[in-house]
Amino acid sequence: MQLARVIGTVVSTHKSEKLVGIKFLLCERINPVTMEGLNDFVVAMDGVGTNAGEIVFYVSGSSARFTKVTEGKPADASITAIVDTIEINGELVYQKHKETDRE
Amino acid sequence: MQLARVIGTVVSTHKSEKLVGIKFLLCERINPVTMEGLNDFVVAMDGVGTNAGEIVFYVSGSSARFTKVTEGKPADASITAIVDTIEINGELVYQKHKETDRE
Amino acid sequence: MQLARVIGTVVSTHKSEKLVGIKFLLCERINPVTMEGLNDFVVAMDGVGTNAGEIVFYVSGSSARFTKVTEGKPADASITAIVDTIEINGELVYQKHKETDRE
Amino acid sequence: MQLARVIGTVVSTHKSEKLVGIKFLLCERINPVTMEGLNDFVVAMDGVGTNAGEIVFYVSGSSARFTKVTEGKPADASITAIVDTIEINGELVYQKHKETDRE
Amino acid sequence: MQLARVIGTVVSTHKSEKLVGIKFLLCERINPVTMEGLNDFVVAMDGVGTNAGEIVFYVSGSSARFTKVTEGKPADASITAIVDTIEINGELVYQKHKETDRE
Repeated sequence: MQLARVIGTVVSTHKSEKLVGIKFLLCERINPVTMEGLNDFVVAMDGVGTNAGEIVFYVSGSSARFTKVTEGKPADASITAIVDTIEINGELVYQKHKETDRE
Repeated sequence: MQLARVIGTVVSTHKSEKLVGIKFLLCERINPVTMEGLNDFVVAMDGVGTNAGEIVFYVSGSSARFTKVTEGKPADASITAIVDTIEINGELVYQKHKETDRE
Repeated sequence: MQLARVIGTVVSTHKSEKLVGIKFLLCERINPVTMEGLNDFVVAMDGVGTNAGEIVFYVSGSSARFTKVTEGKPADASITAIVDTIEINGELVYQKHKETDRE
Repeated sequence: MQLARVIGTVVSTHKSEKLVGIKFLLCERINPVTMEGLNDFVVAMDGVGTNAGEIVFYVSGSSARFTKVTEGKPADASITAIVDTIEINGELVYQKHKETDRE
Repeated sequence: MQLARVIGTVVSTHKSEKLVGIKFLLCERINPVTMEGLNDFVVAMDGVGTNAGEIVFYVSGSSARFTKVTEGKPADASITAIVDTIEINGELVYQKHKETDRE
């Protein structure tokens, strides 16, 4: 799975009928060491109720169809987890704000 | 899914028989922050009735076979949505022209 | 699907038994705007009877098994169409030679 | 499969329900010739009981669902082996420390 | 499929039980025009009985499970052919040594 920041949304009215009711989030992959964006973007289906600005990971390929929301859908990227913490070499490099958690 | 601009068409008479009747669109991936082309091209099957110049997203991999048009076809890229708006960090970075909508 | 030029062939006698009788074509991906090679190569199974030098597109991933020739085979790239024309922004950037067509 | 060093962990409480109980390891791909990190990261599910710092290989794509731990899960990367030795051109370029083995 | 040179082996005792008995070969992708290594490495399962130094092609993705050796295994790369010759634009750029063939 790839770590990414949810930076926006994509809206479409004219789309495959299987996509009706799905929320499309624009994500930018991040480097987890620096937490900086990689200028590499993907439109992912929201499988977990994500808010803008959150750090998530998404699953690619056929496994993007293996969530409740995306089963049987033409999906190649689905957000499957909102990240609480990232730890590298025993050091906490990212911790989700409690306040953000409540928004 | 990847955001792209539909820049042209590819025509083939000599092809896999499963491809008869399918429209092949030439797409250039875009950077949604700048809306500029990435010089990265893909031939995608048209699953939604797309016009030249439109901003779309397409689905890759096995999920490209999960639309009505492409079911059972040798497809690895299918356009599944014409994009109306892209919003990044609360700002509208792309909005489809109403006129284009009517063409 | 990716656009490519068929530049050669790969021959193997010692191979997976499922590959017996399959023709392996060496393809170089092209930039359709300039029609230049991208120095990015793939060995694709020939699903349509391709000649050297032709511009084709090939399908990747599991869909490479969705042609008559490649069904059930360990294929991740299959040529599914020989390209007649490529049109970008209303301009014809590639047209297959009629003579080549007859070879 | 890709060789990588396990450099950390990713924790999520808000996630797809199928992911409950799965351990997410942050991996950095390595160049096996130099054993240096490639600054290319992936979050992989742990299918074999991996410790931080170990050299592993992980499987990508649909095959990431073909381990006991990850069957039916939305997985696109699963660690399937902890590496003992890497040999290149007859020379041992990596050997797992016996002590590390006991930790 | 991708052309590669088999440059070494990877050994693991602690691995997914489905991997017992499988041989893991370290491969470096090559540019077929120059036959030089691309510094891009993959661990591939050996489906055909490959020797070190040989030029092969391997299949990626779900099709890596479509050989006798790798059926049902968590494989994303399997060697399916040892290459005898590569011909580009009518010129032989690679021919396997007869002696190597006997080793």
